[in-house]
Amino acid sequence: MGRVVDVVVTVGQIAQLLNTPSPANAQVQVTGLNTLEEATESELSFCGAEAYVRKLSSTRAAAVIVPRRLKIPAGVRVALLVVEDADLAMAQVLERFAPPVPRPAPGVDRSARIDPSAVLGNDIAIGPNVVVGAGSRLGDGCILHAGVYIGQDVMLGDGCEFFPGVIVRERITIGNRVIIHAGSVLGTDGFGYRWDGHRHVKIPQIGTIIIEDEVEIGSCVCIDRAKFSTTRIGFGTKIDNLVQIGHNVVVGPHCIIVGQAGLAGSAKLGTGVVLGGQTAVRDHVTIGDAAMAAACAAIADDVEPKAVVSGMPALPHRQSLREQAALRRLPDLVVQVRKLQEEVESLRKGISP
Amino acid sequence: MGRVVDVVVTVGQIAQLLNTPSPANAQVQVTGLNTLEEATESELSFCGAEAYVRKLSSTRAAAVIVPRRLKIPAGVRVALLVVEDADLAMAQVLERFAPPVPRPAPGVDRSARIDPSAVLGNDIAIGPNVVVGAGSRLGDGCILHAGVYIGQDVMLGDGCEFFPGVIVRERITIGNRVIIHAGSVLGTDGFGYRWDGHRHVKIPQIGTIIIEDEVEIGSCVCIDRAKFSTTRIGFGTKIDNLVQIGHNVVVGPHCIIVGQAGLAGSAKLGTGVVLGGQTAVRDHVTIGDAAMAAACAAIADDVEPKAVVSGMPALPHRQSLREQAALRRLPDLVVQVRKLQEEVESLRKGISP
Amino acid sequence: MGRVVDVVVTVGQIAQLLNTPSPANAQVQVTGLNTLEEATESELSFCGAEAYVRKLSSTRAAAVIVPRRLKIPAGVRVALLVVEDADLAMAQVLERFAPPVPRPAPGVDRSARIDPSAVLGNDIAIGPNVVVGAGSRLGDGCILHAGVYIGQDVMLGDGCEFFPGVIVRERITIGNRVIIHAGSVLGTDGFGYRWDGHRHVKIPQIGTIIIEDEVEIGSCVCIDRAKFSTTRIGFGTKIDNLVQIGHNVVVGPHCIIVGQAGLAGSAKLGTGVVLGGQTAVRDHVTIGDAAMAAACAAIADDVEPKAVVSGMPALPHRQSLREQAALRRLPDLVVQVRKLQEEVESLRKGISP
Repeated sequence: MGRVVDVVVTVGQIAQLLNTPSPANAQVQVTGLNTLEEATESELSFCGAEAYVRKLSSTRAAAVIVPRRLKIPAGVRVALLVVEDADLAMAQVLERFAPPVPRPAPGVDRSARIDPSAVLGNDIAIGPNVVVGAGSRLGDGCILHAGVYIGQDVMLGDGCEFFPGVIVRERITIGNRVIIHAGSVLGTDGFGYRWDGHRHVKIPQIGTIIIEDEVEIGSCVCIDRAKFSTTRIGFGTKIDNLVQIGHNVVVGPHCIIVGQAGLAGSAKLGTGVVLGGQTAVRDHVTIGDAAMAAACAAIADDVEPKAVVSGMPALPHRQSLREQAALRRLPDLVVQVRKLQEEVESLRKGISP
Repeated sequence: MGRVVDVVVTVGQIAQLLNTPSPANAQVQVTGLNTLEEATESELSFCGAEAYVRKLSSTRAAAVIVPRRLKIPAGVRVALLVVEDADLAMAQVLERFAPPVPRPAPGVDRSARIDPSAVLGNDIAIGPNVVVGAGSRLGDGCILHAGVYIGQDVMLGDGCEFFPGVIVRERITIGNRVIIHAGSVLGTDGFGYRWDGHRHVKIPQIGTIIIEDEVEIGSCVCIDRAKFSTTRIGFGTKIDNLVQIGHNVVVGPHCIIVGQAGLAGSAKLGTGVVLGGQTAVRDHVTIGDAAMAAACAAIADDVEPKAVVSGMPALPHRQSLREQAALRRLPDLVVQVRKLQEEVESLRKGISP
Repeated sequence: MGRVVDVVVTVGQIAQLLNTPSPANAQVQVTGLNTLEEATESELSFCGAEAYVRKLSSTRAAAVIVPRRLKIPAGVRVALLVVEDADLAMAQVLERFAPPVPRPAPGVDRSARIDPSAVLGNDIAIGPNVVVGAGSRLGDGCILHAGVYIGQDVMLGDGCEFFPGVIVRERITIGNRVIIHAGSVLGTDGFGYRWDGHRHVKIPQIGTIIIEDEVEIGSCVCIDRAKFSTTRIGFGTKIDNLVQIGHNVVVGPHCIIVGQAGLAGSAKLGTGVVLGGQTAVRDHVTIGDAAMAAACAAIADDVEPKAVVSGMPALPHRQSLREQAALRRLPDLVVQVRKLQEEVESLRKGISP
């Protein structure tokens, strides 16, 4: 972990942070977190589920965070930090140990190419080889890591951070505190052609993209500009790596879109929708608020609010499970039906005169 | 839309462009297109299907393009532009309003690194931080946006446009008017190893790639170089974002490959093949001319010309539908068979002496 | 193939390389390899399977490498190079003809930005626009192609080669002879949030990544840093393009992960696991040594060592095949059961008094 291990706190300080009684070894110093197996005497660890409880006997960790609901077997000697909300506690501890993200030096790197007509806010940091096009505007506190490309007439709110190699093409509007991870591309033409009898002719894609506040976008994500009007990602939505968002897609606020999911053109997600990894959403499909799709679901029809769907094609999850259970028995069923046919045939012969 | 709204035309001029009678409000000025819901009084809109006809009553659009075949309910007051071919009309109007794509200044940016042995055509535009390797040649009118990398001995025809961050490795031949969108990579080694008893040993991938004229390639697409011989993308084929094309794949002309599809090594597509999003094509599979695969199809066997396939594994689409319909009834079928077994058993007992 | 055709050897020399008797045309010069159809009189070719044997009659190749087990029909006139291990022979010949990979000039390009605190080994080659952050260390013989980004405190062993545009973020450790292809991103934050009642709050991802010796990573691959502890790719593992590796994933040595596969957080692969293209692995799933997953498998549960799984959800491959075979018959089965119901009904009536 190199120069990172600068954070040193005591077990007691962690207990205080988590608002839980301090164990006997309160004065022991810890420098980070690790798994139950790998933690050293100067690291904390975490045990969130029954499945891992047996590891509590052998861990060398200085102390282990456990949720109150977890049943701890007798004989466990490691110091425990018992909390109500284990996820929250983990997040708090991670924040405590989080090393600062290395960022470009304040100001504009000498190798960056900022168009004279671009407007830069205060307290910005622009790294090597960044390009910012004509008419673009960066809000206060924006950070553009090395090699970021911002096209013409792109509007960024305050506090955005784009990691190396992010590409944002022309005429895109991005809100405040938006994070885009390395290698993602916003603003490619939507995928649209018409056949003129001889070849596919490109349909101009003249629309734009709006990314609302507090959206986070992973690496190698592609978000296409609208044919006309707007491709939109709603407030606080989080998108994982390698996701494809087609033209005119509208994603509501607070959605979670897991890695390698794909949303075809004009798909529409409500508020708080969760799409598992490798999910596919057909063009023009609407997914209601708080609906969830399991990983690899292939969604070809509209999904009701709060529905849970899975499978290919995606069905209500219970139906999917029932069909899968039946499918497990299908080979036997085929045999049973053949046997039934024979029996019925023999019965028929038996009663025929 | 920033500085884009410079295009102002009248409804009458649009009618003329579409070769259709002008509505009464011919003199009204319009500045763009939008959806039926979002269009303002100075925007055009479009209604292509029955499903949206009801929105015609409430739209504020200056005029709406509709195909002649669409049945317009009485009482619709918005001005209509009635056309034969709605897709063509849309494309024409989009072209009319399309803002120019921002491009690097003519010539070679001072930060670009062009090898002295590279040959550049006339009227080229090469942006910041571009690299062009030894022995490469760019045809007339080529545009390389910021950060494009062209390796050694790469041949580009006339009128190609590569968006920011495109990477084309050595010894690749690209035709005329080829568009490659931001972040795509051409020329990575094909994925090939042999096990020597101790480890996977890399098999050299010494072949090349040929991209024919008028191909368009989306963002974050990977096209691998051949093991030997050539990976080839045919004339006028269009490839969406995040598509994987393995080594020695041959894609015919006029194909459409939708986002996140993957073609394994030596797969072969005929002319005019359409692959839906997230389609998978097994290595060495051949797909016939004009065949189509629905989204998420997993194609493990050759596909006949003009066939339509879907599902995993991909089957003829009608069969797929029939099986899916039967699968919906499978849980009931299991119950029915159990009941039949009981009935047959009871019948047998009934007639046995 | 441009300036590549510098390698000229005779058929006899190739026979010697492959340790096989030389054909009669030993003195004929060859300049490369090609397919049976496309090979010219000065090229070698290869015939590995029965399916292609008929092409031996019409090929123009100077000589064809064939495995001893292949039955050659009478009348084949082309010179044959008969070998025991055709894959090995192919690899040897490809190595013989492999053109050198173009690399940056030795030393550090003047446009590269190397932090003064970074430590560079001997015989390195760093191309244009490369960035190397503070505290990072490159072993001997490392090659960073144009536009590579190395963050702070990144440790590289000896002999690594990173192709254009590769991004390696801070605090990552990479072993010896690791190859990363263009456009891949290592070190993005893992995808983790907690809902605080109002919005998704980012959970800090403070861990790191270890890439062991002789790993090869394709293009546009994303490997996320661990939440805490380490995301790890084992010795000699090979990863194809567009693969997603989530936080805290542990991949054992000698694995093969084919294009567009996705491994969710904390998934664990043993030694020598093979994942087909577009495979999905659920979070926290463990896959045993030498297990294999067919393309498009959706792995939701642990997989035993040496097991072969396929389908969605992934099942033991034989069971998957049996179910698929039964599913092909399901539409007929539905009809058969309906008929049986009628027959049983009619039987019941027939025997009722």
